[in-house]
Amino acid sequence: MNLEQKASLLSGRDAWSTEPVGDTPSAVLGDGPHGVRRQAGGTDHLGIHASLPATCFPPAVAVGSSWDPAVAGRLAAAVAAEARAHGVQIVLGPGVNIKRSPLCGRNFEYYSEDPLLSGVLATAYVRALQAQGVGASVKHFAANNQETDRMRVSAEVDERTLREIYLPAFERVVKEARPATVMAAYNKVNGVHAGQHPWLLTTLLRREWGFDGVVVSDWGAVNDRVAALRAGLDLQMPGNPAADAEIVRAVRDGSLDEAVVDRSAARVRTMAERWRAGRADFDADAHHALARELAAECAVLLKNDRAVLPIGPGVGTIAVVGPFATEPRFQGGGSSRVNPTRVDVPLEEIRRLAGERTVTTDPEGADLAIVFAGLADADESEGYDRTAIELPGEQVELIRATAAAARRTVVVLSNGGVVSLEGWHDDVDAVLEGWLLGQAGGGAVADLLFGVTGPSGRLAETIPLRLQDTPAYLNFPGEQGTVRYGEGVMVGYRYHETVERPVRYPFGHGLTYTAFAVGDLAVEVTGTDSARAALTVANTGGRYGKHVVQLYVATQAGPVRRPARELRAFTKVALGPGESTTVAFDLDARAFAYWDVAEGRWLVAPGEYTVQIGENASVIVAEATVELAGEVLAKELTLDSSLGEWLAHPAVGPAFMDRLTAGMTEEQRAQAAEHAGMLRLVESLPMHQFLGFLPAPLPEEALAELMALSRRGTRRRPRERRAL
Amino acid sequence: MNLEQKASLLSGRDAWSTEPVGDTPSAVLGDGPHGVRRQAGGTDHLGIHASLPATCFPPAVAVGSSWDPAVAGRLAAAVAAEARAHGVQIVLGPGVNIKRSPLCGRNFEYYSEDPLLSGVLATAYVRALQAQGVGASVKHFAANNQETDRMRVSAEVDERTLREIYLPAFERVVKEARPATVMAAYNKVNGVHAGQHPWLLTTLLRREWGFDGVVVSDWGAVNDRVAALRAGLDLQMPGNPAADAEIVRAVRDGSLDEAVVDRSAARVRTMAERWRAGRADFDADAHHALARELAAECAVLLKNDRAVLPIGPGVGTIAVVGPFATEPRFQGGGSSRVNPTRVDVPLEEIRRLAGERTVTTDPEGADLAIVFAGLADADESEGYDRTAIELPGEQVELIRATAAAARRTVVVLSNGGVVSLEGWHDDVDAVLEGWLLGQAGGGAVADLLFGVTGPSGRLAETIPLRLQDTPAYLNFPGEQGTVRYGEGVMVGYRYHETVERPVRYPFGHGLTYTAFAVGDLAVEVTGTDSARAALTVANTGGRYGKHVVQLYVATQAGPVRRPARELRAFTKVALGPGESTTVAFDLDARAFAYWDVAEGRWLVAPGEYTVQIGENASVIVAEATVELAGEVLAKELTLDSSLGEWLAHPAVGPAFMDRLTAGMTEEQRAQAAEHAGMLRLVESLPMHQFLGFLPAPLPEEALAELMALSRRGTRRRPRERRAL
Repeated sequence: MNLEQKASLLSGRDAWSTEPVGDTPSAVLGDGPHGVRRQAGGTDHLGIHASLPATCFPPAVAVGSSWDPAVAGRLAAAVAAEARAHGVQIVLGPGVNIKRSPLCGRNFEYYSEDPLLSGVLATAYVRALQAQGVGASVKHFAANNQETDRMRVSAEVDERTLREIYLPAFERVVKEARPATVMAAYNKVNGVHAGQHPWLLTTLLRREWGFDGVVVSDWGAVNDRVAALRAGLDLQMPGNPAADAEIVRAVRDGSLDEAVVDRSAARVRTMAERWRAGRADFDADAHHALARELAAECAVLLKNDRAVLPIGPGVGTIAVVGPFATEPRFQGGGSSRVNPTRVDVPLEEIRRLAGERTVTTDPEGADLAIVFAGLADADESEGYDRTAIELPGEQVELIRATAAAARRTVVVLSNGGVVSLEGWHDDVDAVLEGWLLGQAGGGAVADLLFGVTGPSGRLAETIPLRLQDTPAYLNFPGEQGTVRYGEGVMVGYRYHETVERPVRYPFGHGLTYTAFAVGDLAVEVTGTDSARAALTVANTGGRYGKHVVQLYVATQAGPVRRPARELRAFTKVALGPGESTTVAFDLDARAFAYWDVAEGRWLVAPGEYTVQIGENASVIVAEATVELAGEVLAKELTLDSSLGEWLAHPAVGPAFMDRLTAGMTEEQRAQAAEHAGMLRLVESLPMHQFLGFLPAPLPEEALAELMALSRRGTRRRPRERRAL
Repeated sequence: MNLEQKASLLSGRDAWSTEPVGDTPSAVLGDGPHGVRRQAGGTDHLGIHASLPATCFPPAVAVGSSWDPAVAGRLAAAVAAEARAHGVQIVLGPGVNIKRSPLCGRNFEYYSEDPLLSGVLATAYVRALQAQGVGASVKHFAANNQETDRMRVSAEVDERTLREIYLPAFERVVKEARPATVMAAYNKVNGVHAGQHPWLLTTLLRREWGFDGVVVSDWGAVNDRVAALRAGLDLQMPGNPAADAEIVRAVRDGSLDEAVVDRSAARVRTMAERWRAGRADFDADAHHALARELAAECAVLLKNDRAVLPIGPGVGTIAVVGPFATEPRFQGGGSSRVNPTRVDVPLEEIRRLAGERTVTTDPEGADLAIVFAGLADADESEGYDRTAIELPGEQVELIRATAAAARRTVVVLSNGGVVSLEGWHDDVDAVLEGWLLGQAGGGAVADLLFGVTGPSGRLAETIPLRLQDTPAYLNFPGEQGTVRYGEGVMVGYRYHETVERPVRYPFGHGLTYTAFAVGDLAVEVTGTDSARAALTVANTGGRYGKHVVQLYVATQAGPVRRPARELRAFTKVALGPGESTTVAFDLDARAFAYWDVAEGRWLVAPGEYTVQIGENASVIVAEATVELAGEVLAKELTLDSSLGEWLAHPAVGPAFMDRLTAGMTEEQRAQAAEHAGMLRLVESLPMHQFLGFLPAPLPEEALAELMALSRRGTRRRPRERRAL
């Protein structure tokens, strides 16, 4: 290939496909990822123009609540089949951005506020998709946590926060599932566009994580084509011949090494050749049935007073009210919008399962009223953020009026972003949070209401009492071009649990139609920085059900502020009544580590670690504390080190104190002992300054000797702080 | 002078004085500022060695609560007299750092969590001190808000937060009182040591604010002498001949311009010549009496149920308990520690005023018990921060036991940093927060308890319910060398009011022995960005008293997140029973402005501004809203501007929409109208991208014309973001 041909590989042929060059085929990329959005006629990246019919499976917000990688995987396998049917080689998803604020307009496309849950689900998705021969595009890399000013805003976020919160889901997917592509986000990260960020796209993604696929731009994310290419962005989308020409010019004028073009062109060629599984049909009926089954795994039963659900035989008259009962809301707006093959209508599905019962739309005198409430399409979407979390006022009124009229009231919610339950929560008997459940959500909700299936979803994000109680409240969505991630690692439940701020429902909360008990927690240390936890789970209720075992680690070890607890492992187990099972988790170093910015790596600090089994992030039902040896950082001491650091050094501290008192008279010793408490006052002084306060100077050789002592056992000097 | 002589002026002769060179005299600098700490024998900067006796006036934490510049000024005038008596030319104070967290160990040396209150009091102090011929040293410049790792920690803080919160007190003092010196802090600001920060010491301090005095280092704050000198730090303290030699070497090897040395040497010489008021004696008795009078203005009566205070004639037996009743705590530890001329003992002062009453130390059966509680010397000090805000457990027990035993209980608190009142607040009848009141605090408290004087202090900082509720809780004191100011401008009451988080007592709270009413608030717009507010204040109670009128401004105008309200003016008025007066405030642009980082200047946005008169920061007793014309920023539009910005432009927006629909067929128009809501989805798109989605391209000339239209009336292009 000549230079022009190679450059032409580096942006699309059009909005959705790469350029075919010689024997290199074109690859088609298609929006997703909870269904295939393949545009036939007018093309855009905004969900405006219609696309070919495809099954709309539950969006990520719902899959997150399943806490089940099998749900993500089965969904992805079906999407892969539909992608092949529509001639799509690469599906643009999954989205693994962290829900930093409940206001983000695109939260419905993301899994969770927790990076482990997000990463595990996304890894299952990518593996299953790619196992069917269709490539994935993990997005939006990185720190793309809002829609406001999304093309330009700079996310100002420190490295520890990136490493511990915003990057681990990407890291897991890249390392464990080897996605075909990673999509560079629109926004800037610490002042540099994500699409031209050498540290993100090359240092981290390729060198540290070993990514060998294609970095593709979000549609229109490239600002400076040559800078982006140099930083590691291979493929610009949509097609842009002018940008290709810029690349050619830059090589010709010597400002760009042609080897950079070769490398990226080779990656695009490899991608186009690799992901060509060939056309296949799909069974729309079977996929609809699958969508219904998966949706039922995702809905979260938040409240169920007096066991009003499932609807029992004593309920003779059921009222179904609310606009979404007949016009369901089941997906979000924007580039992920799927043109569904069909749509279940909740009212009809309820009628079908109600049997002999009377189903009406009038709550006056009903035994049970079901209110379908939530957010309308215009309330949330890709492209803009929300500014409040309240339900529309008329819906709150409808719920309250219904609750006043009916004997018992159940609220079924449809919403992509968290909504507040305040103002009506205490008036109703049950709340089923359905999020957005896809095209078969109506049927799935009916199944859950009547007990055809039992609810097993758990909250993948906190439901706060007030927007003001959320960690990014003051800093979202930023101002004048920047957004400060001022809450650091304290995102979601990490924040609420650490500041002990009450919430309406905590992360991990969810009820079932049966009951579970956990016990016999045993935690065994398996190495200097690893442990193994085992426990039993028993279904102590009267029905088959699924339970999500949540393992958190709580520690204050190390020099950084740790969240009160962090989710470090989880699994979903299915048990019949009376059954029990044993669950075991191997916890590796990452379950205990923090990101040390001075060392520039993950570090397990020596200390106590409490392994907690949580009913949710707030309610701990079992815990055990272990001591980990971790890694002792013997800090190399210099005259710039503080007195406190000298005194704290295990070997040097005592030796230094000996030296200090060695030359003293009896009287001076007595005085020193008297003033010992004052050392605290001067602990922050660098040693060279402290020495100036001494009545008699310490010999230079003595100091040199002590500093040499500190170097013994020291691994290496702390690195300089890096600019991200 | 030759180079060596000039260089020798740039660091001290010793710990406390500058070098005399030729006819340039030496100047003595002395710790303070609530009294003179002049060391005779062993010298240090840590309050360890004893100093010559001087009156210990109320420290800044108390003066802050007076809300009275006259208190700060009278105190400073007396300190100036004592400085002259002790041969001190420059007093090292006042400290105007903002109380970012209640945990800062040095909060007792600072006035407030509010920059206006801090700045007004400090300005009064500096004016009065310097009017007596003694120079001041405004400290610690800047963003020095903690003791932990204070010699090295980098305060990571954005420019708007610096400009609106951490700098205004310095700015006011520099502009209005022209202090002799400004002291550069130990810490780093955004990665650069404050003592070698060109933007802080030269761009801002000298060029913007017009400072013409000496920048002196905090004792030991200089790390790189030549870099510090170049950045604008004139005088290094204490003396350091090696550093002087470095300067000489740098000039000789050409790396430092000798003009820089000349300039700083001239400033030091001018300072040493200017501040030589000559020796004078002071009247220790008169100063003690003044200290008592001032202290009484500072204490804050937090609670006074059933008017238990002042102690009435019906009280026959008074129990006085608690360790501080006989060994009062009245100042903090570290460099500000004064060797007092005498110390009032509260128990003795109470006995003196009790007259015929029985004063005992046994609460069993007393009509009234007074518990002296608070923090011990070791609990807080310069040099380290606190980690909790609770009173020591044994004191809480003492309070609760006393409250259970006595008929009525009054708690008198002595503490430099805020303490929690939880666990005992509801058990007692009255709480008098004395902070640290100086050597005559015992007498002042007795005066207040018996009604010799009425309390008139108001909280200069919020008393929270829990440490977890404070804005810097998660980010204080930082980790691994940096502290993120993640709360931005939302410091103190700005945070609590904005997130609507309850507190125990809000900023500005304080009771008196009489009652006041405000009314007739009238607010008049006096210009595009200014207004005048007037109101009446009446003493409606039965006793003489003082009332603090607090004026806040609340607005949501402009592109930045505004605090719920901000203190913009205040005054303290004294009224006899039945008297009333009119108070007027002229509010200039700064009362309404925010710092615009894009424009790089203060800006008053067009919009509504509510002027609120607060009983405190939480309780608004009168308000009036005005509309200010402000300044309309007609933004220059480019193809990189977002669609939203184009549409929002007053002139271009409608013209652009006309253009968009001009070439459309009837059918297209209808379709466009139908999809109008979708514009919201794409508002964040840069224009050049949006254009790509149009069915027919817009002519280039039309776009150029629209962009030209946007430039009409545009003042200038937004500046590039500056690195601080």
